[in-house]
Amino acid sequence: MYYQKEIILHPYPRGFHIITNEIEEAVPEIKKIKIGLAHIFIKHTSASLTINENVSPDVRSDLQKFFGRLVPDDTPYFEHTLEGADDMSAHVKSSLLGQSLTIPIMNGRLNLGTWQGIYLGEHRHHGGARKIVVTLIGE
Amino acid sequence: MYYQKEIILHPYPRGFHIITNEIEEAVPEIKKIKIGLAHIFIKHTSASLTINENVSPDVRSDLQKFFGRLVPDDTPYFEHTLEGADDMSAHVKSSLLGQSLTIPIMNGRLNLGTWQGIYLGEHRHHGGARKIVVTLIGE
Amino acid sequence: MYYQKEIILHPYPRGFHIITNEIEEAVPEIKKIKIGLAHIFIKHTSASLTINENVSPDVRSDLQKFFGRLVPDDTPYFEHTLEGADDMSAHVKSSLLGQSLTIPIMNGRLNLGTWQGIYLGEHRHHGGARKIVVTLIGE
Repeated sequence: MYYQKEIILHPYPRGFHIITNEIEEAVPEIKKIKIGLAHIFIKHTSASLTINENVSPDVRSDLQKFFGRLVPDDTPYFEHTLEGADDMSAHVKSSLLGQSLTIPIMNGRLNLGTWQGIYLGEHRHHGGARKIVVTLIGE
Repeated sequence: MYYQKEIILHPYPRGFHIITNEIEEAVPEIKKIKIGLAHIFIKHTSASLTINENVSPDVRSDLQKFFGRLVPDDTPYFEHTLEGADDMSAHVKSSLLGQSLTIPIMNGRLNLGTWQGIYLGEHRHHGGARKIVVTLIGE
Repeated sequence: MYYQKEIILHPYPRGFHIITNEIEEAVPEIKKIKIGLAHIFIKHTSASLTINENVSPDVRSDLQKFFGRLVPDDTPYFEHTLEGADDMSAHVKSSLLGQSLTIPIMNGRLNLGTWQGIYLGEHRHHGGARKIVVTLIGE
């Protein structure tokens, strides 16, 4: 079974956000797959997808602080700043964290660890509604 | 062919460790696949999987030194420190390096480069026995 | 349908380079796939693959500047320096950015966002001709 769907997320503010439920609810077809893979892909270069702890909000805020300091908006040598100070820093974070996740499917569900959630990394102040492509492969 | 297996690694100390053989030996079913993909997923948010040089131990120790300095345990602004100084730093490293690998399969074997090995990044001092899900897809 | 092909890129200088067209032209078989996944894997530990903005050359040069400062060639504590000052720094960048990409296929084409391009990260001064394995899975 091969299945692909494009999802449009509602706009999120800059930061890290848990979107596990939004993804799972968008593809009920996953229930038909006993063994397989779910591939989740964000069609942008100023946002990212990553997996991290799905309970404590301070993990998301600490991550946001870390990446804000690692790639500062006011990095003096950045030249690609046409769209503002959060333009190039967002591109760097997007490559550091990556734009896709592949997650095992077992018995109709994402086979995530107990503490794992899917994070959207929104690296722009006004990134807008992000497009995500979910592809399911399995039997 | 779709195949999935959960493996429990023995506990490793903090640092980077080559686990290519442990993975390959756990899924002899790979030998039946002529063309396909192997997906390797760690079900944790304080460890990671990456690929790097499979001979020199100093690559592993240099990587450990680099990430220890990039994300220090005593980062003063971290708030998620309930489980100790290696708690939040481990979450950051886990997202920076990633929790899954997808590797091509060709003629019953992982189609890795000559110098490529699969690394476990154990980012906690006492991370315990880590769970890994290996999914094989191919024909 | 399962398909796998090994491609040898021509040598690139150190830096980030867009290789989307080289990849697509190397696997015309992708046109036969309605829904699926393309997996692109570089068989090296001193280069990387990432996705970023496919128009402005200053995104590539800013990325190069960022990673050159994040992982300096003259990092004093690196011990793995047998092949020169760009040896260990290249290994670190390779793990930070990753060596593989998985991209959805829809109607015979890579389902990338409008601004997304495939980047080769060449982290050595003389990395030579890099080997890439492209695997297509779909129907």
